[in-house]
Amino acid sequence: MYTLEEIDRILENCSKLRHIKQEPANLYEPLDYMMSIGGKRIRPKLCLLAYNLLSDDFRNPIVFPAMALEVFHEFTLIHDDIMDRSDTRRGCPTVYRKWNENVAILSGDAMSILAYKYLAYAPQTVLPSVLDLFSTTAMQVCEGQQYDMDFEEMPFITMEDYLEMIGLKTAVLLACSAKMGALIGGASKEVCNALYEFGYQLGIAFQITDDYLDTFGNEKVFGKKIGGDIMNNKKTWLLVESFRRADGPQKQQLKQLLQMDESRRDAKVEAVRNLYVELGVKEAAASEILSFHKKAVDALSAAGLEPGRTRVLAQFAEELIHREK
Amino acid sequence: MYTLEEIDRILENCSKLRHIKQEPANLYEPLDYMMSIGGKRIRPKLCLLAYNLLSDDFRNPIVFPAMALEVFHEFTLIHDDIMDRSDTRRGCPTVYRKWNENVAILSGDAMSILAYKYLAYAPQTVLPSVLDLFSTTAMQVCEGQQYDMDFEEMPFITMEDYLEMIGLKTAVLLACSAKMGALIGGASKEVCNALYEFGYQLGIAFQITDDYLDTFGNEKVFGKKIGGDIMNNKKTWLLVESFRRADGPQKQQLKQLLQMDESRRDAKVEAVRNLYVELGVKEAAASEILSFHKKAVDALSAAGLEPGRTRVLAQFAEELIHREK
Repeated sequence: MYTLEEIDRILENCSKLRHIKQEPANLYEPLDYMMSIGGKRIRPKLCLLAYNLLSDDFRNPIVFPAMALEVFHEFTLIHDDIMDRSDTRRGCPTVYRKWNENVAILSGDAMSILAYKYLAYAPQTVLPSVLDLFSTTAMQVCEGQQYDMDFEEMPFITMEDYLEMIGLKTAVLLACSAKMGALIGGASKEVCNALYEFGYQLGIAFQITDDYLDTFGNEKVFGKKIGGDIMNNKKTWLLVESFRRADGPQKQQLKQLLQMDESRRDAKVEAVRNLYVELGVKEAAASEILSFHKKAVDALSAAGLEPGRTRVLAQFAEELIHREK
Repeated sequence: MYTLEEIDRILENCSKLRHIKQEPANLYEPLDYMMSIGGKRIRPKLCLLAYNLLSDDFRNPIVFPAMALEVFHEFTLIHDDIMDRSDTRRGCPTVYRKWNENVAILSGDAMSILAYKYLAYAPQTVLPSVLDLFSTTAMQVCEGQQYDMDFEEMPFITMEDYLEMIGLKTAVLLACSAKMGALIGGASKEVCNALYEFGYQLGIAFQITDDYLDTFGNEKVFGKKIGGDIMNNKKTWLLVESFRRADGPQKQQLKQLLQMDESRRDAKVEAVRNLYVELGVKEAAASEILSFHKKAVDALSAAGLEPGRTRVLAQFAEELIHREK
């Protein structure tokens, strides 16, 4: 079995296999650009780690499907950035901004097709189940994004709505990543499903962590200005929980704060953060992250594998929620 | 073997198998809407006809992949309509116009995933080759659309450019449709490749016919106002060939005509049509359509199947280029 660092190196080498064509330039340059801005590659890493529970043989039938997850994720980001009118991602201009909307639509489309091209490298015996898992997940991600956009129009949402939305928008893809590695590795149905559950709960923990860091992260480490979600009135775990806990006057205060615009950024961010602390929401978020992390770990235990084997996956899960960006 | 009418009825029944979910509404209603506006279903029909050369067994392993071709085609139309800022399609509002751009992006994405879901019903033995054919084709369609958009910015293009662009944007999908039916039917490599070539040449003929009808079609039969391409200065076969044939003064005349806007629609359409006739381009287009049709028919003969078996496919090809809309 490999360490996390060794898995990282395998992933680095993977990205050199990419075979991206050159022409037409307006179609393929954005793809290259998006892949080169890079990311944490969480999803392919999770896939490879799950696979490594069963095998050390890292060749095309596992590395290409693992890359497919990253390519698919990048596709969703390109299109999300158009729909959200986002100018930057990971500190760089979005494809939408760097080129234009039409280029972003079409190169995103090409990326979704490329994901399926890479997926098709899976071993033929498991290809139908890998495809089914991936397509089901991909559709769910679209549903999650739709709910996210629908919720923007609503003054508030319930915690149930929020959890369902991030379940679809974020968690299922991590669940899919973990399960896919297991499927390709030839794991039993029980192990595959346990890894799905592990990935799902970890995905929820991951998203709430994301929400937390955007408001309470360390700006220097985080790499971007905190408070973006607050300024966008994004329905994060923090905001949803605040509405749940707030009494009448606090709800009023929150609504007024949400109406403040970019010209009063610092004041808005500080006031909302303080209200979160006052309501106990900051602490509750940290606690909720640990709770979902524990569900993930429990699911992993239920896989019935020797603790020694799952150690690296467990380490990965820890690092995911204790990251600072 | 079935007749064209029987294949039509099989396709009608197919569309009832669609299993479209309901929630979230903003994601799935546009899908339903797009499928219900309907179309000529040329691509699935071609797929089923090719399959029928080899088998009469029309169940999920062929009908769902056939439908995948239509779903994929519809996906490209939803996104193309955003990129072209088109208000109507088949006489109805586009998804982009009926809902909004974000809905059109995301429901289009969902359709591309749905296509792959349907494709996965192909028999497991041929699934890898079906996937490979489809993904390669899908990527080529994106390339064709990119070239089409790039060409809009250019004052003129060569006939070589035009043929390459429509090859990618239109012909490869018909080629894929025909070959896919053959693959799923278990045809030999030679027959599969012959059907690909048949579909490709037919696709070129089909697109030039499209260009021809938009300018010279019978408005009552055509179902929409003629001259749309002329008003959009679209690089059709007619326009490209005109620039090729025109002498100095005629090129000047053409350039001036292209600058006329919507306020002078009738004058512009009439003048361009007359110039096309004067240059012999109208006649040449009709002749070119027949020429590509003949290439298609020759490719079909090269498949080495009994003429009796290919009769219905040949009839389909005839009807495709002799249609009036």
